[in-house]
Amino acid sequence: MSRLLNTTPAADGFRMPGEFEPHAGTWLLWPERPDNWRLGAKPAQRAFTAVATAISQSEPVTVGVSHRQYQHARAVLPAEVRVVEIANNDSWIRDCGPTFVVNDQGEVRAVDWEFNAWGGLDGGLYFPWDKDDLVASKVSEIERVDRYRAPFVLEGGSIHTDGEGTLITTEECLLNPNRNPTLARGDIEELLSRYLNVEKIIWLDRGVFHDETSGHVDNICCFIKPGVVALTWTEDRADPQYDISSDAFERLSRVRDARGRALEIHKIHQPDPVLISEEESEGVDVVEGTLPRRAGDRLAASYVNFYIGNSVIAMPCFGDRHDELAAAALGRLFPERRVVSVPAREILLGGGNIHCITQQQPLALHRMPAR
Amino acid sequence: MSRLLNTTPAADGFRMPGEFEPHAGTWLLWPERPDNWRLGAKPAQRAFTAVATAISQSEPVTVGVSHRQYQHARAVLPAEVRVVEIANNDSWIRDCGPTFVVNDQGEVRAVDWEFNAWGGLDGGLYFPWDKDDLVASKVSEIERVDRYRAPFVLEGGSIHTDGEGTLITTEECLLNPNRNPTLARGDIEELLSRYLNVEKIIWLDRGVFHDETSGHVDNICCFIKPGVVALTWTEDRADPQYDISSDAFERLSRVRDARGRALEIHKIHQPDPVLISEEESEGVDVVEGTLPRRAGDRLAASYVNFYIGNSVIAMPCFGDRHDELAAAALGRLFPERRVVSVPAREILLGGGNIHCITQQQPLALHRMPAR
Repeated sequence: MSRLLNTTPAADGFRMPGEFEPHAGTWLLWPERPDNWRLGAKPAQRAFTAVATAISQSEPVTVGVSHRQYQHARAVLPAEVRVVEIANNDSWIRDCGPTFVVNDQGEVRAVDWEFNAWGGLDGGLYFPWDKDDLVASKVSEIERVDRYRAPFVLEGGSIHTDGEGTLITTEECLLNPNRNPTLARGDIEELLSRYLNVEKIIWLDRGVFHDETSGHVDNICCFIKPGVVALTWTEDRADPQYDISSDAFERLSRVRDARGRALEIHKIHQPDPVLISEEESEGVDVVEGTLPRRAGDRLAASYVNFYIGNSVIAMPCFGDRHDELAAAALGRLFPERRVVSVPAREILLGGGNIHCITQQQPLALHRMPAR
Repeated sequence: MSRLLNTTPAADGFRMPGEFEPHAGTWLLWPERPDNWRLGAKPAQRAFTAVATAISQSEPVTVGVSHRQYQHARAVLPAEVRVVEIANNDSWIRDCGPTFVVNDQGEVRAVDWEFNAWGGLDGGLYFPWDKDDLVASKVSEIERVDRYRAPFVLEGGSIHTDGEGTLITTEECLLNPNRNPTLARGDIEELLSRYLNVEKIIWLDRGVFHDETSGHVDNICCFIKPGVVALTWTEDRADPQYDISSDAFERLSRVRDARGRALEIHKIHQPDPVLISEEESEGVDVVEGTLPRRAGDRLAASYVNFYIGNSVIAMPCFGDRHDELAAAALGRLFPERRVVSVPAREILLGGGNIHCITQQQPLALHRMPAR
């Protein structure tokens, strides 16, 4: 019931909306694998539940879960969250799930990118990733939305759009040879234009320091609305993040978006460095082929990895002195939404944050009639 | 997103509609287990696909499938069939799936019966059955319908209702001590009244000869519409089915339904005896605890095990001299529907037939609004 389309979204008049446009709901996947999530994923499951709970105050939430964890997830998630069975290799639906596109008639379709676990056999984070690569089609089937299978590797967290023709991404990720080694920058730009209906691509250099996704943009920079972006920041010149954020700031300052606007840039100061503790490291199974979680390794903590719900901003917090500042900044940037700070260290320990574990589904104004 | 309700359908004004009332769609589960379906279930999968194809001309069809078979099922099922992931122990959604109930406002809810694989440790057909027992709740979650968990063992194939207060069942099944050993006939009647909102229960003695379900009614007798039933029949007095059908005919002839009507009874002559062949038996894995498929065993073949779709009757056929007669009879009984005969020997070899592998979902006139 999800037709596989041979055309492209741009050719069919579909575009990727901004995350701040109205949602029908959001999707998560339930964390489970003990070689990525400490203590059998129990602390992470509590954090994911808190995220689902926060967002479900704003819009319908569906959580996909393997048959092994189905009963437990259903038991601990709030009743208003829908729980469906979706096998997966890990729980990053931003990256393995569909990217939804809409047209002016309010129809919704899905773009299903190729997924290779952030680098395949050349630096990918685990093996195999076959179940993850089916998540987008399974979501499309449940929702009865038609689907484009894009002929290249991409993760949803490596792009942000303003819904008006502009996309932000990073060279570190999209030009990484472990994604699409045969495609040059121009080829990538052409494919992004076809599959997301964008005209202007803003290239940042790198993502957050030590981000294992090869520098996904959604951890360093995002759109607040068209013409306005948030950028993770530090005032500490000795921090490797300083040069990265400064370079991003310079690039963003110089650029014009697809509508010819200069960008308004809001700096959000990052938390102090977050390192994996000995205890945290010891709680993770050691499996060859899965990225190890070593004590002392720095995690890519950033407040910019928040989720924009219809009426709520779900923002990661870390028990850090910058938590309040970040929440206040987002409160000013989203005056019509309520900022909910969710303790996110346990998500961060798995390699991402709130934005990485969510995927918004835009509101369909005209649903396909049931037959 | 499927609330678990503590009340009962009858108390809340919900009733089980007749199968001939309008459907939103129908559900199937994909056959897979090699200790029940010969040759790795490939022949059965083709038969199930033919059933799904026939019904999808009439109403939306959703097929639940384990993650192992997901890609194959999606590839071979028609595009208009929705495929969703649902782990299961076997593919009899009539029995392990939800029984839907509706109210006068057109709202739909699910009844989730306890399931013990047709007899549990005392004559059940396989072990374990834990995944089957979750199917009803998973369907309810996907469809966002609220759910009653009935506090007793029942399979959907063991009951038929006319939607106007009358239910038909068999003593062989519902009074079998391997279902609800502590409940007497009166207790069962009381529970059926509460959970299906029926007032009159018609008890047949037994189901079809050698039916491994303990004589499910849906293989011997069903409602065509209120006041009218079809009954599987034979003119061969030497066939053990003769006495069973004759007894059923007598009981049905004497009874009045909940509205005080005498029943119009239509006899549908059964096919000639169908026996498992040597080759068929050899294609099935031998596993202790699963009912063996022995060469020479008689299968419970009956044309009455058809599915009533919105505009189609999906009827099993067997390459038998009675096939045409049965199709013609159903054509007369359902003048506004098209009878599609589906070769069903491969389904029968697994222990049931078309009605057993389907579960209708009534049309909701007023869907719950999305939040």
